[in-house]
Amino acid sequence: MNMIEIITKKKLGQPLTREEITFFARGAADGSIPDYQLAALLMAIRLNGMTPQETTDLTLAMRDSGDVCDLSAIPGVKVDKHSTGGVGDTTTLVLAPLVAACGVPVAKMSGRGLGHTGGTLDKLESVPGLSVSLTEEQFVEQVKELGLAVIGQTASLAPADKTLYALRDVTATVDSLPLIASSIMSKKLASGADAIVLDVKTGSGALMETVEDSIALAQAMVDIGTLSGKPVRAIVTGMDQPLGTHIGNALEVKEAIDVLSGRVTGDLLEVSLLLGSHMLVASGRTQDTDAARTMLLSALRTGSGLSRLKGMIAMQGGDEACVLDTSLLPQPAVIRPVKVGREGYIARMDAEALGYAAQAMGAGRVQKTDEIDPSVGYILPVRIGDRVTPDTTLCTLYARSEEDAAKAEAAIRAAITIGDKPVDRPPLCYAVVTAQGVERLA
Amino acid sequence: MNMIEIITKKKLGQPLTREEITFFARGAADGSIPDYQLAALLMAIRLNGMTPQETTDLTLAMRDSGDVCDLSAIPGVKVDKHSTGGVGDTTTLVLAPLVAACGVPVAKMSGRGLGHTGGTLDKLESVPGLSVSLTEEQFVEQVKELGLAVIGQTASLAPADKTLYALRDVTATVDSLPLIASSIMSKKLASGADAIVLDVKTGSGALMETVEDSIALAQAMVDIGTLSGKPVRAIVTGMDQPLGTHIGNALEVKEAIDVLSGRVTGDLLEVSLLLGSHMLVASGRTQDTDAARTMLLSALRTGSGLSRLKGMIAMQGGDEACVLDTSLLPQPAVIRPVKVGREGYIARMDAEALGYAAQAMGAGRVQKTDEIDPSVGYILPVRIGDRVTPDTTLCTLYARSEEDAAKAEAAIRAAITIGDKPVDRPPLCYAVVTAQGVERLA
Repeated sequence: MNMIEIITKKKLGQPLTREEITFFARGAADGSIPDYQLAALLMAIRLNGMTPQETTDLTLAMRDSGDVCDLSAIPGVKVDKHSTGGVGDTTTLVLAPLVAACGVPVAKMSGRGLGHTGGTLDKLESVPGLSVSLTEEQFVEQVKELGLAVIGQTASLAPADKTLYALRDVTATVDSLPLIASSIMSKKLASGADAIVLDVKTGSGALMETVEDSIALAQAMVDIGTLSGKPVRAIVTGMDQPLGTHIGNALEVKEAIDVLSGRVTGDLLEVSLLLGSHMLVASGRTQDTDAARTMLLSALRTGSGLSRLKGMIAMQGGDEACVLDTSLLPQPAVIRPVKVGREGYIARMDAEALGYAAQAMGAGRVQKTDEIDPSVGYILPVRIGDRVTPDTTLCTLYARSEEDAAKAEAAIRAAITIGDKPVDRPPLCYAVVTAQGVERLA
Repeated sequence: MNMIEIITKKKLGQPLTREEITFFARGAADGSIPDYQLAALLMAIRLNGMTPQETTDLTLAMRDSGDVCDLSAIPGVKVDKHSTGGVGDTTTLVLAPLVAACGVPVAKMSGRGLGHTGGTLDKLESVPGLSVSLTEEQFVEQVKELGLAVIGQTASLAPADKTLYALRDVTATVDSLPLIASSIMSKKLASGADAIVLDVKTGSGALMETVEDSIALAQAMVDIGTLSGKPVRAIVTGMDQPLGTHIGNALEVKEAIDVLSGRVTGDLLEVSLLLGSHMLVASGRTQDTDAARTMLLSALRTGSGLSRLKGMIAMQGGDEACVLDTSLLPQPAVIRPVKVGREGYIARMDAEALGYAAQAMGAGRVQKTDEIDPSVGYILPVRIGDRVTPDTTLCTLYARSEEDAAKAEAAIRAAITIGDKPVDRPPLCYAVVTAQGVERLA
């Protein structure tokens, strides 16, 4: 077997065998296949596609290119959750404690922020002292004891995906459905959970902008689960505006604490309950999502969710006092509100641009090696469909300087369209995709 | 301008601008664009194609990535000729001296053997002492004095093509019409000739196996000539069997000398006269190819063609005595004839396999750094359509050892199909492609 033959087959639109896929995934992981051959193959895959079987074979080959996490020491059905990435999307910090409080162990490996989207690890690290670098042993121990841990992926997880992911970023081959699906699923399968719930975002701030593309991606990942014998369900949720009202790392932790404390409701809580209820069903804790929702709401009301988050922060070395007093989270030099300045209706948001506005303030990385400033970002209380007056607060900026604040204000204003006519609120959930098929909800 | 945007455009099937093409060609030449990005772009070009304008822009950008040879010191219209590569294809050594003898200066830069096809430089170097490494100044001086020089390309000629050509070889992107056409034409335009005659081979031993693909390639290269203001004509000739009867480096020099001495006629002479007559027309020496053919035949009869070859060998440091006594060319340890062994008709030849049979004997390189043995190869007197008996000589092997000879015999036998029914001889020439259009001849 050689790489030129493999590239040639894909160039001609022929499906690759499992052996061929395993060959190049191993070569990507151990560095034995040069980048230029992998790049040519990635472009051929981007343009000629992959069958569901090939996509599954690639997923499993990437999973097996490194260590697979062994969670068998943790009793019960371990459920993982993954989001394709959004803006103001802090569902993990809300639902993971709630699900854990309902008795389902959550052993979650998360990622860093990328491009315009935030990352759970970066958010968690805004809690003073908190570490996301646990050994696999510590990770398993914490989940056994507390039922909850959120950590970074170990370096040895799916190394083939690391190589291909980095190459895709610089060869314009990111936008390939089989490559996106296999990349996400290889890491999820390697992280060792028994069942997986996927949050596939759709809209102006999502990887896939149209509902149809998002459903196709959801379907591809559910198919991989089915073909590899792991229960996977995907929920297609809206990303036409930031999910929560807080954008930025410490700000998003604050919002998650506000939600878990019962002080705040809204779309972030709704989507967290939606995904959380599917996690409870996937784990077998209950049969239907309505019952699951009731259990989660009870964990919210009794404060047992918040107390799990507090426990996790403490066990991972963070300052648990933040949970009771969010002013202990990092604060920036400048905090100032911005008024809408006109009358009308919030008609549209460019959620991607809103994400980049926060990135430019220092909340995200332009290059991989950039440091993040946990304190910066902004609160955006308005939602699509809201009626506004000149005096309505458009946003509150949390910036390092007046100059940064001014730039962010301009970017945020440019990303939000205000019209004269009433506008419908966009749906929160578009579809649920399971091995049984696609259930459309909007 | 950045490379990811350029790859993205081509990935989406959009044409690239001249500026974008110049950007990546320069980056390929100076090493500023990494191989993996070039590889992704090459695959996108292979799968999504290029317009004639893009192909011409790429050709000119690759030409201008290095030095362009200045032949203006040589009086007259300088005509170059290029073949897409064949087996037993020694036309350059036959037609260049004949064309020069007709008063048209031939300043030719040639290539090395690649894969199953031989290279003029390797053949010439089988003449003891001969050098193909002249400086540009020596090259121009020799053409001014003798009207004829055949040398290797200087290192600074079309460096962008060198990078892309090497990458295509290892990324399965060789078989792209715009990439083939621009690669050939960039080197031809950089070598400074005023007019170019292309020999586009078609058949089992050619880059393009079908006549339609070969005509399309011819058309693409003629279009580049038209768009860049240089007269180019392309002749599509047959490569369903080796062109000459001799395959191997010294053997092909011997055959060229035999033809120029008037001892041998046949397909090699016919195709040399055909291409040579188009060179005379392209140079403006005469208006029609029939008159040109008469001039070339006269140079053959009077021996002035042979004497030009002798002059060139002498001026490039080679042993000119070889021209009168071809036994002075390198000879191998083993020379033995092989009989057909059955009755029938030569029905088909796999010319590519016949080329590889010579390569395996040591006449070609498997890797770029391999040394060539000038003495080895074989004479294949049979042609498609020939009636043969068991006693007919199928070939005469020129080998380094009995073992090599045995392997070659097996490979040659496997590449030649002998049938029971009479078979038509394949055409020598399929089409002539000029700026005026395609003239089909078979």
